[in-house]
Amino acid sequence: MAKLFWRYGAMAAGKTLALLGVAHNYERLGRAVLIYTAQLDDRYGEGVVGTRLGLQRPARTFTPQTRFEAADIPEGTACVLFDEAQFLTTPQVRELHRIAVLHGVPVICYGLRTDFQGNGFEGAAALGLLADQIEELKTVCGCGRKASFNVRMDAEGRRVREGEQVSIGGDAQYHAACPYSFYTEQCKP
Amino acid sequence: MAKLFWRYGAMAAGKTLALLGVAHNYERLGRAVLIYTAQLDDRYGEGVVGTRLGLQRPARTFTPQTRFEAADIPEGTACVLFDEAQFLTTPQVRELHRIAVLHGVPVICYGLRTDFQGNGFEGAAALGLLADQIEELKTVCGCGRKASFNVRMDAEGRRVREGEQVSIGGDAQYHAACPYSFYTEQCKP
Amino acid sequence: MAKLFWRYGAMAAGKTLALLGVAHNYERLGRAVLIYTAQLDDRYGEGVVGTRLGLQRPARTFTPQTRFEAADIPEGTACVLFDEAQFLTTPQVRELHRIAVLHGVPVICYGLRTDFQGNGFEGAAALGLLADQIEELKTVCGCGRKASFNVRMDAEGRRVREGEQVSIGGDAQYHAACPYSFYTEQCKP
Amino acid sequence: MAKLFWRYGAMAAGKTLALLGVAHNYERLGRAVLIYTAQLDDRYGEGVVGTRLGLQRPARTFTPQTRFEAADIPEGTACVLFDEAQFLTTPQVRELHRIAVLHGVPVICYGLRTDFQGNGFEGAAALGLLADQIEELKTVCGCGRKASFNVRMDAEGRRVREGEQVSIGGDAQYHAACPYSFYTEQCKP
Repeated sequence: MAKLFWRYGAMAAGKTLALLGVAHNYERLGRAVLIYTAQLDDRYGEGVVGTRLGLQRPARTFTPQTRFEAADIPEGTACVLFDEAQFLTTPQVRELHRIAVLHGVPVICYGLRTDFQGNGFEGAAALGLLADQIEELKTVCGCGRKASFNVRMDAEGRRVREGEQVSIGGDAQYHAACPYSFYTEQCKP
Repeated sequence: MAKLFWRYGAMAAGKTLALLGVAHNYERLGRAVLIYTAQLDDRYGEGVVGTRLGLQRPARTFTPQTRFEAADIPEGTACVLFDEAQFLTTPQVRELHRIAVLHGVPVICYGLRTDFQGNGFEGAAALGLLADQIEELKTVCGCGRKASFNVRMDAEGRRVREGEQVSIGGDAQYHAACPYSFYTEQCKP
Repeated sequence: MAKLFWRYGAMAAGKTLALLGVAHNYERLGRAVLIYTAQLDDRYGEGVVGTRLGLQRPARTFTPQTRFEAADIPEGTACVLFDEAQFLTTPQVRELHRIAVLHGVPVICYGLRTDFQGNGFEGAAALGLLADQIEELKTVCGCGRKASFNVRMDAEGRRVREGEQVSIGGDAQYHAACPYSFYTEQCKP
Repeated sequence: MAKLFWRYGAMAAGKTLALLGVAHNYERLGRAVLIYTAQLDDRYGEGVVGTRLGLQRPARTFTPQTRFEAADIPEGTACVLFDEAQFLTTPQVRELHRIAVLHGVPVICYGLRTDFQGNGFEGAAALGLLADQIEELKTVCGCGRKASFNVRMDAEGRRVREGEQVSIGGDAQYHAACPYSFYTEQCKP
C-alpha cells in the first residue's frame, strides 16, 4: 500500500529543489517518475518546474478540471510528484489518495499551506486531512525564526493585504514570514 | 513565541490519554493548564474528558459560538489543551493561534481529521493549515496497518455510509481503519 | 516489512503511558502484544510497567544477557513493546530490528536518550542509528521550554553531577530539563 | 535558544542538496551561513560540498582534531551547516550543541547513520542522542521501499562485507538499501 505524502513549506522553503532531488533519486535507479505542476504557475514557462538555484525540468500541468485516474499513469511509474499542490481541488486530492492506496504508486505533493492573507488553499487543506504522512520543509523569517506564512509585497516593498488569492510571482512579490511577523508586521525582538 | 500544536489521530489513538499526560506533566511542575472539550461530546458527561483506560477530569466546554481571547485565560496558565479539536471553527483556530503567538501560551489541540465519510472536519482542516507543529498519534487497523480513517457501524456491526457528520459515541459505533480498508471494505491481504 | 520504532523522551514525558495506550489499542482489536521492561527498573515491582497516573501491568524483563529471537515471540503476537529501552545493548537492538524486518512484527521502543551527565545510553544510541522511525515524546522544563535532558538531584534537591549511570528512582531523584538549564544550571530568562 | 538539528539519510538522499537550499534561503535574506564538511571527503575537491545535480560551493573542513568554539564563528553568522556530520566525534557534537544552546546560533547537521556493515558512525550516534530535533531525509531502495542502510559494492558490483569503515566514493561504490535488502541480499517480494 503506497502513501500520499504532503510536504508543505512557505515561499522559498526549497520545495521544488526537494522534488527534483527525489526525481533524481528514482531515476538513478532506472525508475521513472511523473511530475505535475499547476498550469497557472508559469514562472519558468508553462509546464516547467524550476528552482532559484537554476535547476529545472518539464512537467505535466493540471488545472481544477483535471481528473486523475490510475489509467493516466504510464506503466512502470515508480512515483508521482506534484509541485504547487496547493492548487489541487479536494476531489483531486481524494483521487490521488486512491491512486496511492489502491494502485500502489506513491504520490508526493509539495506546496504552500496559506495565502498572503493567511487563508488556506483548498489543496493544502485537503492534503492536511487525507495525507498518510505530513512533513514540513522549513525556511526562515528575517528574524531567524521558522517562517510558516507568506507575505505579499507591492513593487515598493509595502505589504499588500487585499487582492486576489493567486498572483504568481517570484521573490519580488512574496516572502516567507514567521507567525509573529505575519500578525504584527514586525519580528519579535 | 509559543506554538499552536495539532496532534491528530483516528478513533481510539490515545488522544485524550496523551492530553491527560501532558496536563499531569505541567501540574507536577506546579504549573496550571486549561483544558477544553467540545460541548457536544458528552460521552463521559458534559465538560469531562475521559479515556477508555479509566482516567478522566473536568474541562471547560466550547461551542462554535465560543470566542477565545487572551483575557479568557487565567493568569499563570502554562498551556491550553483542547480535546475534540476537530469541532473548532476556522475563526476559533485563528484566535487560538494568535493567543499562542502573541501571548506566549502554547495551545495543544487533539482531534480527528475526517468523519465516517472521509470528509474533513472544519477544525481539523484549519489546524492542518495554521498549526506551527503537526504530529500524528497512531493507532492500528484490524490488519495491523496504521489506521487513519474512521468507520461508522450500526448496532449490527454493518458499515454506515450516510447520515449526520456528528453522532457521538464510543467503541460500539466507530472504529479506526487503514485507507485501503476505508476505500475497499476489506483490509489488504 | 514491519518497523523498529524509537520513541524517546526525557523523564516523565509519558513514555509508559503511551506504551500502555498502544497495548490497549491492539488488545481492543483482539490482538496480543508482548511487553518488556528492564529487570533493573523495579520502581513498580520487578516485571511491572507503571505510570504516575496509576496505570500498570506485568511485563517480561530483559537484562543485557537476554537474546531476542523470533522463536521467543508467541504465535499471534501483533506487536512487541519495550519500556526502558535505553538499557538494551547494541546487539539486542540489532536482534530486534531483524525480528521486525524479517519476521514482520513491529517493535516499539520507549526510553531515555541520555543520563544525568548528558552521556548517551547504549540502547538509545543504537536505536537512534537503526530505528526505521524516530519520534520524540515531549515534556516541559520548569521554564516552559521543551525538556530533553535529565537532571539527578540528591535528597536535599541539589544537583548531582558525579556517580553511577544508573540509579533507579522516581520523581524525587530526577527531573527533566531543557538544554539551557542542563548546561547552565538556570533556565533561560 | 537555538537548536542542534540532525537530518540523516542514506546515500544519495539529497542531504547536500538540502544543505545548499538552506544556505541559499539564509543568504537571500542577507544573512551569512557557515558551512563545514569533513576533510576526508574530497569527492568534489577538499573543502567543497557538491551534489550529483551539479551544484557545489566551498566549505570549511573539520577533522577529529577540530575544536568548535563560539569564538570560531564569525560575527553575524545566522546558521552553521555541516555536511558529512557522521564524521564528527562525540565531544565535537557536544561542543556544537553548546554553541547552539548557549550562543543562539542554530547548527544543522546532515549525514549518514550507519556504515556498509550497518555499524553506527560516532557522529551519527552522538547526534541521535543530543540533537534537539531529528528528521529523516528519505530515499528509495531498488524495490521502492524506503532505504535506510548503505551497501558497499566492488568494481564488479558485488557486495563488500569486510573492510575499512571509510572508503569515500560516489555512486559506483555505494547504494542505499532498505533494511530487508540489507539483511537478506534481496528486496522483499
